[in-house]
Amino acid sequence: MLPPGLLDALTAIVGEAYVHVDADAVQPYGADALKRGHPPDAAVLPADTAQVAAVVRACAAHDTPFVPRGAGTGYTGGAVPLRGGVVISLERMNQILEIDEANLIAVVEPCVITGDLQTAVEQVGLFYPPDPASLEISSIGGNVAECAGGPRAFKYGTTKQYVLGLEAVLPTGEVVETGGKVVKNVVGYDLTHLLVGSEGTLAIITKIVLRLVPKPPATATLRAAFATVEDAAAAVTEIVRRRVVPAALELIDGESLEAVARHVGSRSLAPAGTAAMLLLEVDGTEPSVAEEADRVEEACRIAGATELLRATGPEERDELWRVRRELSYSLKQVAGLKFNHDVVVPKGRIPDLFALIARIREAYDLKIPCFGHAGDGNIHVNIMVSPDDAEAIARAREAEQVLFEGVVALEGSITGEHGIGFTKAPFITIELSPDEIALMKRVKAAFDPHGLLNPGKIFPETP
Amino acid sequence: MLPPGLLDALTAIVGEAYVHVDADAVQPYGADALKRGHPPDAAVLPADTAQVAAVVRACAAHDTPFVPRGAGTGYTGGAVPLRGGVVISLERMNQILEIDEANLIAVVEPCVITGDLQTAVEQVGLFYPPDPASLEISSIGGNVAECAGGPRAFKYGTTKQYVLGLEAVLPTGEVVETGGKVVKNVVGYDLTHLLVGSEGTLAIITKIVLRLVPKPPATATLRAAFATVEDAAAAVTEIVRRRVVPAALELIDGESLEAVARHVGSRSLAPAGTAAMLLLEVDGTEPSVAEEADRVEEACRIAGATELLRATGPEERDELWRVRRELSYSLKQVAGLKFNHDVVVPKGRIPDLFALIARIREAYDLKIPCFGHAGDGNIHVNIMVSPDDAEAIARAREAEQVLFEGVVALEGSITGEHGIGFTKAPFITIELSPDEIALMKRVKAAFDPHGLLNPGKIFPETP
Repeated sequence: MLPPGLLDALTAIVGEAYVHVDADAVQPYGADALKRGHPPDAAVLPADTAQVAAVVRACAAHDTPFVPRGAGTGYTGGAVPLRGGVVISLERMNQILEIDEANLIAVVEPCVITGDLQTAVEQVGLFYPPDPASLEISSIGGNVAECAGGPRAFKYGTTKQYVLGLEAVLPTGEVVETGGKVVKNVVGYDLTHLLVGSEGTLAIITKIVLRLVPKPPATATLRAAFATVEDAAAAVTEIVRRRVVPAALELIDGESLEAVARHVGSRSLAPAGTAAMLLLEVDGTEPSVAEEADRVEEACRIAGATELLRATGPEERDELWRVRRELSYSLKQVAGLKFNHDVVVPKGRIPDLFALIARIREAYDLKIPCFGHAGDGNIHVNIMVSPDDAEAIARAREAEQVLFEGVVALEGSITGEHGIGFTKAPFITIELSPDEIALMKRVKAAFDPHGLLNPGKIFPETP
Repeated sequence: MLPPGLLDALTAIVGEAYVHVDADAVQPYGADALKRGHPPDAAVLPADTAQVAAVVRACAAHDTPFVPRGAGTGYTGGAVPLRGGVVISLERMNQILEIDEANLIAVVEPCVITGDLQTAVEQVGLFYPPDPASLEISSIGGNVAECAGGPRAFKYGTTKQYVLGLEAVLPTGEVVETGGKVVKNVVGYDLTHLLVGSEGTLAIITKIVLRLVPKPPATATLRAAFATVEDAAAAVTEIVRRRVVPAALELIDGESLEAVARHVGSRSLAPAGTAAMLLLEVDGTEPSVAEEADRVEEACRIAGATELLRATGPEERDELWRVRRELSYSLKQVAGLKFNHDVVVPKGRIPDLFALIARIREAYDLKIPCFGHAGDGNIHVNIMVSPDDAEAIARAREAEQVLFEGVVALEGSITGEHGIGFTKAPFITIELSPDEIALMKRVKAAFDPHGLLNPGKIFPETP
């Protein structure tokens, strides 16, 4: 229930059409891609920064929690309210404000769809590299809040490498600007990069200044199959030893490939006996791409590739990538419930990670198809169970704990892309020390002294 | 004066040989490249992280301020104590701990000299791109604390793009680790990038995990002279329009070139009638470098270059860069006192910046040779006066204020590389709002509740 007076205040700010309180209307604002959560008491759709700030001040004046929301495509509940209150949906703030070709900069509102931004900048020969799998539906503001990654991160880095400046509304209602339109800026603390990846718990991002790069004129795509994960990892090592940094270096494991073969009813995408497939892309100028693709081929051969394909045109390229696109549909047929993790280890530790997963598979009798970004050691570990099998779900829960502890022991991290939200909050003590968590909580309090912005996220609730 | 008991405590931690209190011995710890400041009451040289933490706790227990120090090569006093107390010099923590070729990572102690790290990684075919002018004498810890830049930032980014993780001692004595050995890590807040550029005011950095990239196998160097700054800026625009991102894009203005010509007694490095010279470098694979160098030449010709040279070997390359190396010696002969600023504007605004500087030159009757990194709009503005000319110094002080206000009006920043320290603290209100400064002070308090770490830096003192 909203406290008396708040609804009137919100309506006065954004207009009646942009405040939702009916159960049906607020329902969609209570979930993300994870599809669980608690609907808010109200969803408010401000038109601009001034309205966001006014909404924040109204909520704060009524001691009511508020949660910012972009496209709502997250996996860990970052945009999902846990305690009712108000969802501040930025869906109306969806304009590309500026593409500045001379300065290689874009200025955007938070709810621009990432794929739309990419298309717009590529039309003028520029490139925004971060490419989360959700890019056709996720918003750039959500990407910034979560520090989205994707296949290109090994070569190009993640979202944080492209954010130069932000405009944001503090939980106490002030509008601040951080960074700006220049690559170099060392005035005061780098609040820009503190806000990137802060999962909507420090401030509400209302404008984003992004760095762009020239679009690479050429790309080559290769697909290599290996009989063991160790061979595929050896290929990655050989590629790095040849000083090639591929724009994509995706790994798909045997269990995932089996699911694809069953789903598409053919072995064309998933040759029998393949324990690990690499999808590789190099980009750059035409001559350097040809040379680097040769070096990648050589590296895969030396590592014992059992099949090696190289696309010669857009259709062939599309066909090589098809296995990746079929993956999520294929996994849905393995089991109805997916515990979807995105652990990351130093790439040299990938064989250790797969050995760990093999042990977990056996010990807990679970299906765990894996795929991910081998270049940066970021592997999506999908624990698949039937939603009706309580016993299997309990085993999956135990397996998660073992997975996370093992990953941290391998000098890795429990999440490389999805963030903590509330679903991974119970696990952060595996990775962060009590001193580190206490420091982060003091930083949170420096931004949000009353704890009203997106409460219950990142930090484990103290019992 | 040290409070009673603190000297004994410090000696017990690091040993007598590593605590200095004599006036002569502490004198060098009271200045940086700026050569002014206040010597500390003691300089302490811990051997490792545990000793740093113990020294911090001892100082805190005695309510005594402490200032971390790397190589002491800063320009804005970041490592210079303002209120006595203890300098914690990290000079003994100077080891490269690990160069991990498979994972493209280096782990270093803070007082490794940046140039030594570059040499070490280049010996195995890897590359650490940030290259501040001070790289032969500055330490990587200082580079991280200041977020050092340099010529390569346009293509490769600044120090922050290469820091994956840190170990640091909080002002309250806890040791924390941030980030780690993986490129993707979204667990909790990105304290790594908050510490980068925080100028030793939030924590003392004791270990650094750095991302490396493959060393580009080929480089081409060009030098282009232009009759006007506008023509040089047009060349930059044409280069970007051709979608080339040079590894270096240095600009030297006519006044600087005159100083070089006088100093070396010849016009070979500084052709007469040149208002702006560009030093350009492209790097990458052999074939792509050749192609990109052609495109750069074309861009310079179209923009009206009056002279265009391209190096064909290492000696020629060295000769083209010579003008840049002679610069600081040449400027010393212009006048004895240099107010050395490092403003930055979006690169499309460079002509506006030079127009502003021309107006300042005239209005305040000052010599202001300028040079810098045109690719990222970061221009070193050197206001040269005689140290004995109080009237000129007063004019220079007024000119600084006008420069900083003008730069912020051009959507730029008052410092792109040197940081705020204490010398630029009075000016940050030009760029940051009271709300932004208040937020940064709350962040500072979250790390340093008693205000003992490096007091008097970044924030203007309230009167």
